Amino acid sequence: MLKRHRLLPKSHLKLPGTAPGTLIVPEQAPEPVVTVMAFNRDELTEKVIENPEEIKPFLKKGTIVWVNVDGLGDADLLKKLGEIFGLHTLALEDVLNVHHRPKVEEYDKEIFIITRMACLRNDVLDIEQVSFFLGKNFVVSFQERPGDCLEPVRERIRKGGQRIRFMEADYLAYALLDAIVDGYFPVLEHFSERLNALEDVVVGNPDKQVVEQTHEIKRDLQVLRHGIWPLREALSRLSGDMPLIHDETKLFLRDCYDHVIQIIDILETYRERAAGLTDLYLSSLSNKMNEVMKVLTIIATIFMPLGFIAGLYGMNFDPDVSPLNMPELRWYFGYPFALGLMALFAAGLLIYFWRKGWIGRKN
Amino acid sequence: MLKRHRLLPKSHLKLPGTAPGTLIVPEQAPEPVVTVMAFNRDELTEKVIENPEEIKPFLKKGTIVWVNVDGLGDADLLKKLGEIFGLHTLALEDVLNVHHRPKVEEYDKEIFIITRMACLRNDVLDIEQVSFFLGKNFVVSFQERPGDCLEPVRERIRKGGQRIRFMEADYLAYALLDAIVDGYFPVLEHFSERLNALEDVVVGNPDKQVVEQTHEIKRDLQVLRHGIWPLREALSRLSGDMPLIHDETKLFLRDCYDHVIQIIDILETYRERAAGLTDLYLSSLSNKMNEVMKVLTIIATIFMPLGFIAGLYGMNFDPDVSPLNMPELRWYFGYPFALGLMALFAAGLLIYFWRKGWIGRKN
Amino acid sequence: MLKRHRLLPKSHLKLPGTAPGTLIVPEQAPEPVVTVMAFNRDELTEKVIENPEEIKPFLKKGTIVWVNVDGLGDADLLKKLGEIFGLHTLALEDVLNVHHRPKVEEYDKEIFIITRMACLRNDVLDIEQVSFFLGKNFVVSFQERPGDCLEPVRERIRKGGQRIRFMEADYLAYALLDAIVDGYFPVLEHFSERLNALEDVVVGNPDKQVVEQTHEIKRDLQVLRHGIWPLREALSRLSGDMPLIHDETKLFLRDCYDHVIQIIDILETYRERAAGLTDLYLSSLSNKMNEVMKVLTIIATIFMPLGFIAGLYGMNFDPDVSPLNMPELRWYFGYPFALGLMALFAAGLLIYFWRKGWIGRKN
Amino acid sequence: MLKRHRLLPKSHLKLPGTAPGTLIVPEQAPEPVVTVMAFNRDELTEKVIENPEEIKPFLKKGTIVWVNVDGLGDADLLKKLGEIFGLHTLALEDVLNVHHRPKVEEYDKEIFIITRMACLRNDVLDIEQVSFFLGKNFVVSFQERPGDCLEPVRERIRKGGQRIRFMEADYLAYALLDAIVDGYFPVLEHFSERLNALEDVVVGNPDKQVVEQTHEIKRDLQVLRHGIWPLREALSRLSGDMPLIHDETKLFLRDCYDHVIQIIDILETYRERAAGLTDLYLSSLSNKMNEVMKVLTIIATIFMPLGFIAGLYGMNFDPDVSPLNMPELRWYFGYPFALGLMALFAAGLLIYFWRKGWIGRKN
Amino acid sequence: MLKRHRLLPKSHLKLPGTAPGTLIVPEQAPEPVVTVMAFNRDELTEKVIENPEEIKPFLKKGTIVWVNVDGLGDADLLKKLGEIFGLHTLALEDVLNVHHRPKVEEYDKEIFIITRMACLRNDVLDIEQVSFFLGKNFVVSFQERPGDCLEPVRERIRKGGQRIRFMEADYLAYALLDAIVDGYFPVLEHFSERLNALEDVVVGNPDKQVVEQTHEIKRDLQVLRHGIWPLREALSRLSGDMPLIHDETKLFLRDCYDHVIQIIDILETYRERAAGLTDLYLSSLSNKMNEVMKVLTIIATIFMPLGFIAGLYGMNFDPDVSPLNMPELRWYFGYPFALGLMALFAAGLLIYFWRKGWIGRKN
Repeated sequence: MLKRHRLLPKSHLKLPGTAPGTLIVPEQAPEPVVTVMAFNRDELTEKVIENPEEIKPFLKKGTIVWVNVDGLGDADLLKKLGEIFGLHTLALEDVLNVHHRPKVEEYDKEIFIITRMACLRNDVLDIEQVSFFLGKNFVVSFQERPGDCLEPVRERIRKGGQRIRFMEADYLAYALLDAIVDGYFPVLEHFSERLNALEDVVVGNPDKQVVEQTHEIKRDLQVLRHGIWPLREALSRLSGDMPLIHDETKLFLRDCYDHVIQIIDILETYRERAAGLTDLYLSSLSNKMNEVMKVLTIIATIFMPLGFIAGLYGMNFDPDVSPLNMPELRWYFGYPFALGLMALFAAGLLIYFWRKGWIGRKN
Repeated sequence: MLKRHRLLPKSHLKLPGTAPGTLIVPEQAPEPVVTVMAFNRDELTEKVIENPEEIKPFLKKGTIVWVNVDGLGDADLLKKLGEIFGLHTLALEDVLNVHHRPKVEEYDKEIFIITRMACLRNDVLDIEQVSFFLGKNFVVSFQERPGDCLEPVRERIRKGGQRIRFMEADYLAYALLDAIVDGYFPVLEHFSERLNALEDVVVGNPDKQVVEQTHEIKRDLQVLRHGIWPLREALSRLSGDMPLIHDETKLFLRDCYDHVIQIIDILETYRERAAGLTDLYLSSLSNKMNEVMKVLTIIATIFMPLGFIAGLYGMNFDPDVSPLNMPELRWYFGYPFALGLMALFAAGLLIYFWRKGWIGRKN
Repeated sequence: MLKRHRLLPKSHLKLPGTAPGTLIVPEQAPEPVVTVMAFNRDELTEKVIENPEEIKPFLKKGTIVWVNVDGLGDADLLKKLGEIFGLHTLALEDVLNVHHRPKVEEYDKEIFIITRMACLRNDVLDIEQVSFFLGKNFVVSFQERPGDCLEPVRERIRKGGQRIRFMEADYLAYALLDAIVDGYFPVLEHFSERLNALEDVVVGNPDKQVVEQTHEIKRDLQVLRHGIWPLREALSRLSGDMPLIHDETKLFLRDCYDHVIQIIDILETYRERAAGLTDLYLSSLSNKMNEVMKVLTIIATIFMPLGFIAGLYGMNFDPDVSPLNMPELRWYFGYPFALGLMALFAAGLLIYFWRKGWIGRKN
Repeated sequence: MLKRHRLLPKSHLKLPGTAPGTLIVPEQAPEPVVTVMAFNRDELTEKVIENPEEIKPFLKKGTIVWVNVDGLGDADLLKKLGEIFGLHTLALEDVLNVHHRPKVEEYDKEIFIITRMACLRNDVLDIEQVSFFLGKNFVVSFQERPGDCLEPVRERIRKGGQRIRFMEADYLAYALLDAIVDGYFPVLEHFSERLNALEDVVVGNPDKQVVEQTHEIKRDLQVLRHGIWPLREALSRLSGDMPLIHDETKLFLRDCYDHVIQIIDILETYRERAAGLTDLYLSSLSNKMNEVMKVLTIIATIFMPLGFIAGLYGMNFDPDVSPLNMPELRWYFGYPFALGLMALFAAGLLIYFWRKGWIGRKN
Repeated sequence: MLKRHRLLPKSHLKLPGTAPGTLIVPEQAPEPVVTVMAFNRDELTEKVIENPEEIKPFLKKGTIVWVNVDGLGDADLLKKLGEIFGLHTLALEDVLNVHHRPKVEEYDKEIFIITRMACLRNDVLDIEQVSFFLGKNFVVSFQERPGDCLEPVRERIRKGGQRIRFMEADYLAYALLDAIVDGYFPVLEHFSERLNALEDVVVGNPDKQVVEQTHEIKRDLQVLRHGIWPLREALSRLSGDMPLIHDETKLFLRDCYDHVIQIIDILETYRERAAGLTDLYLSSLSNKMNEVMKVLTIIATIFMPLGFIAGLYGMNFDPDVSPLNMPELRWYFGYPFALGLMALFAAGLLIYFWRKGWIGRKN
């Protein structure tokens, strides 16, 4: 059975027609773990909190607050966070719709960003939706599951003395976006290696699994494309006219945009390579079939006439009755004559096949 | 015989050249059932009416009237409704042209919206045209057949205390659109499961029905795409510059637009998967053919030479006449010699095939 | 031999480099029949005329004149008509270039429209170029051959009391366009039925004609697409900024534009269905080939070993010479033993094939 | 070996990095022949000149000078012409780059136009680059080789009394462009006939040459497309805002633009037809293979069992030893019994194949 | 094993989430060799330097300085160069990201250009990233490896008296770009020859390597396309509104842009040819398979009946027992009769095959 990615969340299968903004938790979503990092140039507090109310003290001027929610299993928590940070209810509904297309939405006081994070878990592609709210001095991020590729960003915050501590919340949001986008590169590298391996197999000794694996790779690439393609437009909108984002950050966002373009380009290339693989496989198969057919034809074409000659002299016409009845059977050189006839036939056919290039020449 | 959806209504086959605005009822259209829901924040009247005239009393200020027509079998009724609500005759003609492309048309005092509602009836895709007229304080909707996915909207109206009762007719129209759009998700889920099942069949033991079923799925996806694709543009126009629609509703319409984009994306993915299925099937078939050919070739290649040897010693050359005539027949070890010769041949060929990877190794 | 449509008129093969505006009559163009319909709200004159001069009396204020020319075999007549109505010489050249792309061209005092009329003659697609000149109070139309789908328009004019008699020449032009566009629907219906029939044949018992017929349908659809696609842009230009066309007529033209979009959509669907047919056919063929190969392989694989055994005991080794020489021949149960051996072989192979799913299970 | 068109001139293979504007003569370019036609409404001089200096006397007010250069083998001549007419050195470099993409370039005092002229020489497509400089009162044209499709234009100039003599240099340039564009039509006609012929062959009795010829046609069509496609944009620029071109000429250029669109449309159609041909061919081949396989299978399936029965009664079990040993051999009706058995088998199989539709019914 | 180009640098596989602007040297990048060419109309200094500080003296008014860095193995050197010329850190990061998409980035005082240089090394495509910084009076270029196609530009500088010495830094940048773009032409010529050779092989005697080679060519063309395609947009931006670039240079850049378009066109053509090759190959293979099958079928169909007749008269029915038991065996003309029967059968079948066009006629 083939491995698959869900494109459509069960959670979305709420009864069509329910009121918009209804928060429905995705199936099997883990309980949320909420982490707060509050920092400015000089100070840093990092804390796992139980109650959203604990965030409020951090929300003071001159401090950037990053609230990260790992797990979407608690709709109430989302509502409370929504109230604290003033998040729009339609946006919160999108946070829970874990197969949403990446996008950027601008609200009065915050920017809402949906992205898809790609990573490999045991060589299997794992896609997770990460949503951000960027406000004047806060970033609230939501992830489907624990485990992410944002650790280096946390390290940079912890280490201090770096740009991320001097700049504002928009730079933090950029840093998260950049980490998510750069996270696609090792995944692409993995697919490149798998495609290389498959190509070598196809050219060498194509087997049935090639088709299935190519099919799987194609689908994985498609899933990646779904995750990265709309990000292009989203990033281009972010580096456009957005009051919450400083011009300096926009320069960095443009760099991030370049990376997205590069990823899209590479994905396109891999898709073509995967498509080429199927062609290569079918050609290889046709070649092998041709080879099988040739062996059959050569063998049949040689042994059928020989068998016929043998059958001929196996006939029981009575030589006693008539001198015309198989006199060869009583010739002194009858048997050698028959063998010679056969050898002649076989040699003739071998030469014929050799001339046609079916044997002896390497095809 | 394949199941099919009509893309072209018989009803459209009116004599080309008839005057525009001529109302021609679609073939086999059921008799209309007209339901009125009139409500405001405090009151709600729900009623099945026989005569369009009964609507008039509801049309007073501060009340939102939703007239729903199930069944298009009565052109006169349409005309009367058109007069009561001031609907344009060309729009009414489009209501009856039940295979119309979804669109939004703006008239002086109303907005005309055509959509296609998708649902499953006994696992078969069922597409129905739903047209709306949105006026200042009314919505008139037309459906081809009884049965729809708008029941949850009615429930929300009946329950009261919800946004749908506080806001104006444009929000009602949005709620209907949203219900119709969200109705595509369970249908997509159904196709996803069918594609999964087909993929497993193709990889396991491809049979002929796969092709037909893939063909059917492709067509169903195409029909869905026809229904949803133009809605993208329609919704984008609705959330544009339309005096009848409030800014707050436009925010909701943008959310609905996002869902349409998501549906289009998923449809695209499914189309590619269905296309991939055909490739997978043909590869699978080629593989099986190759396997069949190999069995044939191996058997023929082994038994033809053996049969030839048997035929050889079945020849009737007379050993009495000449010592050269098949002396083997009278050797003491003649028969074991012949059998050994055959075993040698067979073993040699088996080793040859094994070396070629045709037998013994799993391909 | 396949049926074909000419895309390139012989008439266009005038010597490249001849002066523009040279009127060259298409090959085998029939002699023109000129009909005049002159009408206003109260009066109607309908007349077949011999001499273009006869038109002049009708050209008075308050009367709409429709001159219809059936057949393009007379360049002089065109020139005279051109002089009477002030038609541009380049436009007249295009009238005679009977394979011109549909377009709308605006001149000082008239609008020039080229369209392609589609109809079925004996189930064969027949495409005819229809060109219009729309002036302030006249329409001059040119058709390649007698016979058209504009009769219902004439009927509406004759009947009187209808909008077509009250409005101006632009509405008449719209009515003609609408009749031509709506004329595509029965043609599409015909192709839909042919595709349905072909699909059923392919799924049931694919034969060679399917390929040819699919090829023909593809080409016919292509020809239709050539005729309708550019009309989209033409109609959109007509409902744009054109002083000769009233706003009310533009509303009707937008409706006509909708129909063109619908036709294009349906054509696209049919093209995909025709493409799918070829895939279906090839899959069906591969399936049949596979089936043929299996029968061959099963028969060969069973009878070759049996034949070998029979051949073995047909060898003439002399049992008198040595007790090792085919003692089976003199066993009491020799013959039953041989038959048993054969039955064993055959049964073993049948079980092997059954296990492989080659026989007994329905594929 | 396949016939081919060079897309890349050897001449372009100058050392990358040489200074721009370096004039390098194409390989094997013939020596130029320079013809001058100087005319106004009343007078005409036509002359082959040896020295570019001879042109100068013609360059007076009120005279239009057309200098045509056949052959690009002399860089000095180009330089001299460049000086006389004030042509830009980069444009002259493009004249010699004989595989340049058609384009229009506007310089201070002249317009530079590159086009590709298509004609047939002995049924082989011949593409030649024709470049023009259009100045206030001159046209300088460059062709790769003698022989062109501009003769009718020359005739019109010589004849006098025609528009070409009354109007200015821009009309002359238009006339040349129009002659070149119209020159594509006979070429297209030729390809249409070749495609028709190939289609009939494929449907009738497909042979190997079909593939090669289709491949050649595809490439020729591609080459034509390369020549005509960019002309679309070029012509649209010419009929745009160009001070050197009068409004009246622009009307003619728009007509020429229409022809280019028509050619592109036809080319697109032919490309699809050529693509369809390959499909048709492969289907035809599959069909034939199927037929061959069926013959083989039928013959093998009938004769293998018969051969087995014959082999059975060819066994040498000794009936003397045991009554069980092939008693049939001594039955009175033994031989007829064996023959009957065979006939029964054969008939049974024939009925089976007939039921399967493999024989007797026309497929 | 197939040859491959890396699209994704190992160097890019830095831990996602590291701070932007971090300079990480690509794997196995050679140590840089820095060359300075400082020149004006009259003077020229050319020097290999060890320490970036040595550049400073050249940076005076009226002198154009070209610093070329061959090899990216030293991040410190880049930083120092960045400080001297005021290069943006994000741009420097892109210099080291050696698989960056070509682009033009405008900074305050410099323009940053990334291009990809294509050349052949031992008939293998070699792609190298070349980045430029263009300032008011300097160009700093970075190459991955020693060896380039810029030598002719250096020669033109050295020779003096040419435009490159009179004009400013923007012309130098153009000259480098032009040399890089023109460097694609010999590479394209190489691929054209390989495609020609492959086409001849496929038409003549297709072998397995064709598929692999086609696959390789396709990938190489894809890599070239990746290198040249974005350059189109980059060059179009360069010839747009850029204060650092003079209008005269923009004219040259437009010429360069034309070459890029031409390269893209040719690449597109080659891609189609490579795609056509695969089709051609598969058709050729099908043809050969068909031919093999025909030989097999003809041989089998002829010899199976003959073998059957021989087997028939090899049966051992006892003619002594019954006059019905194979009386032919004792006929005087028994043997000739059997041989005649066989000859008749064989001739009949040969005529049948000849009629079917399977033998004797050239297919």
